[in-house]
Amino acid sequence: MKIAVIGASGYTGIELLRLLSSIADLEINQITSRQYKGKKLKNVFPFFSKNRYADLTFEEEIDLEKSDFFFLCLPHETSLELVNQIYKTKKKIIDLSGAYRLKDSSLYKEFYGFEHKYPDVLAQTVYGLPELFRDHIKGASVVANPGCYPTATILGIYPAVKENILDRETVVVTAYSGTSGAGRELKQQFHYPEAFSDAYAYKPKNHRHIPEIEETINIFSYQKIKIRFTPHILPVSRGMIATINFRTDVKEEQLKDIYQNLYEKEPFIRIVETPSHIKYVNGTNYCDIFISVDERTSYATVISVIDNLGKGASLQAVQNFNLMTQREETQALTSLPIYP
Amino acid sequence: MKIAVIGASGYTGIELLRLLSSIADLEINQITSRQYKGKKLKNVFPFFSKNRYADLTFEEEIDLEKSDFFFLCLPHETSLELVNQIYKTKKKIIDLSGAYRLKDSSLYKEFYGFEHKYPDVLAQTVYGLPELFRDHIKGASVVANPGCYPTATILGIYPAVKENILDRETVVVTAYSGTSGAGRELKQQFHYPEAFSDAYAYKPKNHRHIPEIEETINIFSYQKIKIRFTPHILPVSRGMIATINFRTDVKEEQLKDIYQNLYEKEPFIRIVETPSHIKYVNGTNYCDIFISVDERTSYATVISVIDNLGKGASLQAVQNFNLMTQREETQALTSLPIYP
Amino acid sequence: MKIAVIGASGYTGIELLRLLSSIADLEINQITSRQYKGKKLKNVFPFFSKNRYADLTFEEEIDLEKSDFFFLCLPHETSLELVNQIYKTKKKIIDLSGAYRLKDSSLYKEFYGFEHKYPDVLAQTVYGLPELFRDHIKGASVVANPGCYPTATILGIYPAVKENILDRETVVVTAYSGTSGAGRELKQQFHYPEAFSDAYAYKPKNHRHIPEIEETINIFSYQKIKIRFTPHILPVSRGMIATINFRTDVKEEQLKDIYQNLYEKEPFIRIVETPSHIKYVNGTNYCDIFISVDERTSYATVISVIDNLGKGASLQAVQNFNLMTQREETQALTSLPIYP
Amino acid sequence: MKIAVIGASGYTGIELLRLLSSIADLEINQITSRQYKGKKLKNVFPFFSKNRYADLTFEEEIDLEKSDFFFLCLPHETSLELVNQIYKTKKKIIDLSGAYRLKDSSLYKEFYGFEHKYPDVLAQTVYGLPELFRDHIKGASVVANPGCYPTATILGIYPAVKENILDRETVVVTAYSGTSGAGRELKQQFHYPEAFSDAYAYKPKNHRHIPEIEETINIFSYQKIKIRFTPHILPVSRGMIATINFRTDVKEEQLKDIYQNLYEKEPFIRIVETPSHIKYVNGTNYCDIFISVDERTSYATVISVIDNLGKGASLQAVQNFNLMTQREETQALTSLPIYP
Repeated sequence: MKIAVIGASGYTGIELLRLLSSIADLEINQITSRQYKGKKLKNVFPFFSKNRYADLTFEEEIDLEKSDFFFLCLPHETSLELVNQIYKTKKKIIDLSGAYRLKDSSLYKEFYGFEHKYPDVLAQTVYGLPELFRDHIKGASVVANPGCYPTATILGIYPAVKENILDRETVVVTAYSGTSGAGRELKQQFHYPEAFSDAYAYKPKNHRHIPEIEETINIFSYQKIKIRFTPHILPVSRGMIATINFRTDVKEEQLKDIYQNLYEKEPFIRIVETPSHIKYVNGTNYCDIFISVDERTSYATVISVIDNLGKGASLQAVQNFNLMTQREETQALTSLPIYP
Repeated sequence: MKIAVIGASGYTGIELLRLLSSIADLEINQITSRQYKGKKLKNVFPFFSKNRYADLTFEEEIDLEKSDFFFLCLPHETSLELVNQIYKTKKKIIDLSGAYRLKDSSLYKEFYGFEHKYPDVLAQTVYGLPELFRDHIKGASVVANPGCYPTATILGIYPAVKENILDRETVVVTAYSGTSGAGRELKQQFHYPEAFSDAYAYKPKNHRHIPEIEETINIFSYQKIKIRFTPHILPVSRGMIATINFRTDVKEEQLKDIYQNLYEKEPFIRIVETPSHIKYVNGTNYCDIFISVDERTSYATVISVIDNLGKGASLQAVQNFNLMTQREETQALTSLPIYP
Repeated sequence: MKIAVIGASGYTGIELLRLLSSIADLEINQITSRQYKGKKLKNVFPFFSKNRYADLTFEEEIDLEKSDFFFLCLPHETSLELVNQIYKTKKKIIDLSGAYRLKDSSLYKEFYGFEHKYPDVLAQTVYGLPELFRDHIKGASVVANPGCYPTATILGIYPAVKENILDRETVVVTAYSGTSGAGRELKQQFHYPEAFSDAYAYKPKNHRHIPEIEETINIFSYQKIKIRFTPHILPVSRGMIATINFRTDVKEEQLKDIYQNLYEKEPFIRIVETPSHIKYVNGTNYCDIFISVDERTSYATVISVIDNLGKGASLQAVQNFNLMTQREETQALTSLPIYP
Repeated sequence: MKIAVIGASGYTGIELLRLLSSIADLEINQITSRQYKGKKLKNVFPFFSKNRYADLTFEEEIDLEKSDFFFLCLPHETSLELVNQIYKTKKKIIDLSGAYRLKDSSLYKEFYGFEHKYPDVLAQTVYGLPELFRDHIKGASVVANPGCYPTATILGIYPAVKENILDRETVVVTAYSGTSGAGRELKQQFHYPEAFSDAYAYKPKNHRHIPEIEETINIFSYQKIKIRFTPHILPVSRGMIATINFRTDVKEEQLKDIYQNLYEKEPFIRIVETPSHIKYVNGTNYCDIFISVDERTSYATVISVIDNLGKGASLQAVQNFNLMTQREETQALTSLPIYP
């Protein structure tokens, strides 16, 4: 099987190359990047020296014939077009952009700034969260790989939604992300001297991940849930914490049982007894979930921890790839975090 | 005026020395530390070389006669006793521990592990949040300097409480603090290799700052408010963000007006148009407050940012000192943060 | 006295504003920035809210009439021209660029990429290292403020050079700088996710600070000294360590005496008994110097620590300003570092 | 084959478990730790949940019978005894402490504080630097795994020593290490708030790694070389840079050829064209070497970059293990660094 990583010089692309290069029976035969056109992987990212793909060269043009499976790590609007093109060739696609994440095509204008022109492809696209849609993913041609905040949040709230034990008007999510979530493009607020020793909230309303979260959880909800969501920046490269609060009548032990039962066979969800650390999931595909209920206030607090480039992006993409290609679901995804 | 800093080798103590050494007409004539007994300040903290207090020597024993004003930077239970002793001498005290912060003495057993033995002194103690209790502080003999989380949270929620425009059962506070908030004592979770590149929630229920916050805001509330509070660790030395959510019927502009009006004369509160950064308050006494209302969910999100050792501890103590000694309230507190 | 800070939106400019705003009898009446033309200081850098200069507006054009004293925080080649222009008006200038640092005008082509067109102004310019040229600075119209690496290195080696006790062919300087030394302009290597948890050498030969160091120390040397210099990046915002090795026949105590004697009256040099930390000088004008001689190898190791934006740039500029305007040399420069 | 990791709760122990758990045909059947006696691996280090060794329990006592191969991650003096005990059982040992690194037993008193009581075992011990002693390691029973500074320094200087092209009296090494090199034991200087944003030199003379470096390189030298070595702390968890300077008559291209030729078959040495970054080797067994000669000063500068816990400790130990057990030398050691 021949693999293409389109937009391979961004952080999700590089992370995919890291993971895929450990799978012996795959061949990555196409990597693209406008910025690094004609350069070898090892010359742009020297740590690929001595790797099997050290001499692979970044192409500018995409060759749809050359590869069997396409990972797309592109800006949303570029992905919008390319997914449609590849879809016609019947080849399989995992799209790491947001261009096919929302089922309701009318939302794209507000949240992504463009009209969605391919409702047919959108209808065929499966949202790539294996814990919710594993069987659909197995048969999908196009998988929209979830956003990082939605992954952490949905996994943290899904059991409570499914069991209908939350007060749907009280869901408050406060989330912190490492800076790599903003991508590799240069911005003043991520210039090292300024981002060093800093932390802050941003986009306090209408983040595009809100409709993604709501649309997904509302599939499983009796009544429409709206969430209050505030993202923040952590001064690290990787890591994400979603602290989810909602009112509930359920007791703590009961809530823990609900989560434990629903997730017990999941290979990448770890129910934890104390809140997890971003360091415990660094470079991994795990989502660590802590559950507590404060009876004094009748609020549950669920704390969901992932690596934004791991379960929040490229490692989840590999999990989806494994499912779509009938491989072992955990293939290439069992390494421990580097510690400390 | 002769000043004593008791427990001067901890982070709040050192920070007080930094501030107080810039006030020309004061003399610090007593610093104590068990650990560094007999050592000069410059030999323990070399950056005090060439400072006017470089040769000041840490004493083990406290001399109640020697100084006129006492800053106490001690463990809670040690402070409990010492405040009572100094109180009898009629000298003025700012206590940076939690030993006199809660008015309801029955709470100490649960939250601090000891019975409060000095209800009379407690009754005379003023909670040192100038924005709420300025006039009381001016006349106080004993001021209990607020905790860092309570400072950020109370300042962020007080106008909404005072105007009675929040749904009292929906207050959710998610807060992140720099590691210096945990003090100078060694702990495995703050060993550099482990805390580096990490972040996590801790003490997900029953943090001792909860009763401190509730007791204070409920003075201004028609109906008793309970808050849901989850603290987290940020991988920096200093800085604190409290993200406060509550349901409200008020519109955003109206809420902003409420805050603006209440705080407009406050020298250390800055109402900001975009969420502030911990770097903008580093080493300062400012509390930056951002206000938004999401009409879609009818939730307000208020984001309050301080330096946990600044407005959250030692600089607020200096503000209280200025008030208690009829000095200019902003004295020694107007420096800009070091940037970047 | 009316002050202009030209190029005020870069890191050295901002740091100057921080320092100068604490001097009550000065007025900054002109700040310039192409990028932020027409914007108020507080709107670009929100932490200036409530500062006396909060509403000062960035101008694009420079008004030579408006101010009495000019601080130039500009690219080298822009400064080359502007210094010459201001010089003609007889107003005083501190230039923080490299455009007038080298006395030998033939070196500019190689190290700065331009021919130096103003040899007359260059001849009148004083190199602004007070510990070496205090009296000249007092009478200067134009001061070339030293580079950060040269400041740390020259102060660390000057006594040994002056006393002629080093083997002039063995000087090896290995230096590490915080990222703010590279300025505020965006570059891939300083994008936060990439610079986080990283460190590396760069420009392993022919750094433009080499001729600056050699030219200055050779004024005091019997025989021409050449240095081997390798700069590196530290993953912090501020701080600089120059580790200087040279062969010598002198014993350690003797070498310490030489340094102690030469620097004993210097207000900003601290001879230290153990190697200093960058944190001990953060935000200050201090240069901490540690001296040792390893008799086994007959090598001295001198470790010089500064804040690259402090003694390495803007605070040294204020020291020069104080000298040039017959103020107290330490004015505005005595604050302690923020710790921890 | 059954493996024991003795002292498994320190950083080198944990890192060994990470690596070894990826080798399918091995079984770790013994891990010891005094501190965590009786606790399961997953309960002390929660990120081991779902790992094959999650339920492995820390033992206090060491069972010499139980395992076939012993990795020792112990304090030097504890290792001194245990290596001798295991040696008698004819089982194989890799000792990650310094207790058997120096061949000259008379040096231990000065540099480690104890007399070396087992000269016979010491004589049989092979210094575990594969690039220098591969064949000896293959047949060894006891391997002394090198220190981190010696690994970086020796690999950086060995070709120059072997070819006899350095001036033996001019070698100056300035090295920076991440904080994990100091181990997991709590110390004030590694308390997070204090080590954050800091860097400093320490132990400016007589570091115990000096005799280790000199003894090893002098095996290959015509004349005895002494090195000047100054270690420093970098504010990261992992990473090490050794900047090595020496005078030489050789030209740059010639020096590069010497290194290239000697190392061209080495699987873990990468000769680089620009100085490497610690991030490029994070979590890996690579040593990246940059070579330059400054003809102006006749000095070579070689910059050697490793992960202090990787090639500087546990990954090199696995490389040695692979050699000692006739496995593929690169087994378990080919993963890419996590980036960014």
